[in-house]
Amino acid sequence: MAKVNDNYLKLPGSYLFSTIGKKVAAYAAENPDKKIIRLGIGDVTQPLTPTIIQALHSAVDEMADAETFRGYAPDLGYEFLRKAIADNDYVARGCDIAADEIFVSDGAKCDSGNIQEIFSTDNKIAVCDPVYPVYVDTNVMAGRTGEYDPATGNWSDVIYMPCTAENGFAPELPKTVPDIIYLCFPNNPTGATVTKDRLQEWVDYANKNGSVIIYDAAYEAYISEENVPHTIYECEGARTCAIELRSFSKNAGFTGVRLGFTVIPKDLKVDGVSLHSLWARRHGTKYNGAPYIIQRAGEAVYSEQGKKETAGLVAYYMKNASYILNGLKDAGYTVSGGVNAPYIWLKAPNGMTSWEFFDYLLTTANVVGTPGSGFGPSGETYFRLTAFGSYENTVEAVDRLKRL
Amino acid sequence: MAKVNDNYLKLPGSYLFSTIGKKVAAYAAENPDKKIIRLGIGDVTQPLTPTIIQALHSAVDEMADAETFRGYAPDLGYEFLRKAIADNDYVARGCDIAADEIFVSDGAKCDSGNIQEIFSTDNKIAVCDPVYPVYVDTNVMAGRTGEYDPATGNWSDVIYMPCTAENGFAPELPKTVPDIIYLCFPNNPTGATVTKDRLQEWVDYANKNGSVIIYDAAYEAYISEENVPHTIYECEGARTCAIELRSFSKNAGFTGVRLGFTVIPKDLKVDGVSLHSLWARRHGTKYNGAPYIIQRAGEAVYSEQGKKETAGLVAYYMKNASYILNGLKDAGYTVSGGVNAPYIWLKAPNGMTSWEFFDYLLTTANVVGTPGSGFGPSGETYFRLTAFGSYENTVEAVDRLKRL
Repeated sequence: MAKVNDNYLKLPGSYLFSTIGKKVAAYAAENPDKKIIRLGIGDVTQPLTPTIIQALHSAVDEMADAETFRGYAPDLGYEFLRKAIADNDYVARGCDIAADEIFVSDGAKCDSGNIQEIFSTDNKIAVCDPVYPVYVDTNVMAGRTGEYDPATGNWSDVIYMPCTAENGFAPELPKTVPDIIYLCFPNNPTGATVTKDRLQEWVDYANKNGSVIIYDAAYEAYISEENVPHTIYECEGARTCAIELRSFSKNAGFTGVRLGFTVIPKDLKVDGVSLHSLWARRHGTKYNGAPYIIQRAGEAVYSEQGKKETAGLVAYYMKNASYILNGLKDAGYTVSGGVNAPYIWLKAPNGMTSWEFFDYLLTTANVVGTPGSGFGPSGETYFRLTAFGSYENTVEAVDRLKRL
Repeated sequence: MAKVNDNYLKLPGSYLFSTIGKKVAAYAAENPDKKIIRLGIGDVTQPLTPTIIQALHSAVDEMADAETFRGYAPDLGYEFLRKAIADNDYVARGCDIAADEIFVSDGAKCDSGNIQEIFSTDNKIAVCDPVYPVYVDTNVMAGRTGEYDPATGNWSDVIYMPCTAENGFAPELPKTVPDIIYLCFPNNPTGATVTKDRLQEWVDYANKNGSVIIYDAAYEAYISEENVPHTIYECEGARTCAIELRSFSKNAGFTGVRLGFTVIPKDLKVDGVSLHSLWARRHGTKYNGAPYIIQRAGEAVYSEQGKKETAGLVAYYMKNASYILNGLKDAGYTVSGGVNAPYIWLKAPNGMTSWEFFDYLLTTANVVGTPGSGFGPSGETYFRLTAFGSYENTVEAVDRLKRL
């Protein structure tokens, strides 16, 4: 008699963004005359740039001819893309990462969800609080998190690292040593960053304790300040303790195109076992590569013209971030983020909970954001707005918030 | 201190097709003058057809304009594609499957590897022997298979269903009742099929015992005979016991495009829990949808012109299958498959093991096939050839085999 994976049954409610989607759809259906502005989910709105479009068309044409047609991709990604990534994102920054340490995938969400699989289910994870829900939920599904306490919103076997106004939304080294540490900088949802010196402390801590850091750098392109590391491999010793996840979604607008990658240095061993080998085995067994035409689009992101266009997209969204940040500050909100990240983290006013503020904003200003409590207990009373709307909508949303 | 998932360490050797790839690459490097013909991995060689190419170009153009740009896809796939699938693959065959019971993905390999996740690790699986290695290997990674016996090539906790010449390469109902039963028809690797009456027995068996059938129908388009079911939902009662996996790789040539889907009827419950809900939760948490442009290409497969072109591709490969089947029969080989499937299953001659025959064919005829033992113990002394080469190469390969 079949039985289900009952870890799934422990998950409270549905995935955060599905819940938001349903709430917004219900409101829209009841209020067809209202213009709803969505600054909730971190989805981009600007089209793919000309160089990317050209690369896609050109690759599609290759697929039309038997001479240039491509079937199954190499398990770990095409060499042309892996080399472009290694050269531009790592070697150019003085980081010792080789093309064959890069695993091309269909996005950082999938990778951040799947990566836990190569670790023991006995391992204990540490996450920032608030946190991108995928890290925790996928560990719940694997049975790694213990029991859920509805009163606190916490799991008994997870080490939470609170990120609060008091510590500048940057976590402190945990007192109980975790086996696996999830870090995301620039941070989703708070938009906070960490300095290189501070990140070095995490690398040293992990190496000392035999922990592995899963470093999500999906928002790297938004870094505007000096001394904020673009990759964890800028730190000494990261090759022996850190896995890095990257995405093309937020820099090049690939949310609907699906491309990302994971870096696992060959020096990263756990009990003498190469994590690179385990992940290669997983890729080879459960995955069949990102589509050829999309890997060509990824390559185009690294061309000279592609880099210029990508910088233009990032500048467009950062202009929004700046408008939100300054507009809300002017209106008296307590706000952070938005300088090295496309996310603005604000305190819900008048003692509202974050879901109360969500409903309030949706129904009075017709603006959709993301309730901070959806990211963890320390997110309660906070709210995330994204800079990924169009400029016009962003301006209108901020004006509506100011008028409340 | 981090620990690895030590189930991974139990996996013997590397993934079958990676091993073959390395062997062939090594031979090619040493013998640059030899023309190697690859009939090993089930990868297609013919280009995408004009209707698909046009749909891809058109969708790429939509991504270039803010008005038509698409970001994150709906978790479970675009409605236009789910509806086309339900209408064409199910409703048109009289099967009661709705669009919202279809989960669009990046391919049947991923789905067949990931689907085990929603079941308890205590569940016992049954697989055909020989079998597509992904079913077993992904269960090994999850810790569901017990210990490996190198002498037999078997796992202690897996129920094997031998498919041999004696039973026409069609498995018998297992005496020990499995919790999860993997079936694949038309079969990879043997090319065997099952009649509708026979499949009905499996559905009845599963319903009676509370087992779940994972039915891989990736090769459905190759069915040429009457009374061979195109989907398990042609059988009475399949909605309460069966999950079906399908692919665009083998009908429309999408091996490098990546598109597939899984069907989970809402009636399929295990201990009162809807597997549809669990899989939806997995999709929502660990996956971010297939690329928009590729879902549009999938939709085009179901257009009138798309169907004609797809039928043309299938006919092209089936002409190859027929040529291999008849050619090898003429040459005195013991051969099966190739009538409702793009695979030909032959007995290695002169008492050779399947890897011996692999090496022999590679070095004497420069033809690559797949050793049957790579698919399981009952595949020893067998060999798989695929019909996915070009016609010219297929003819040449068969001629070389005849001359041996």
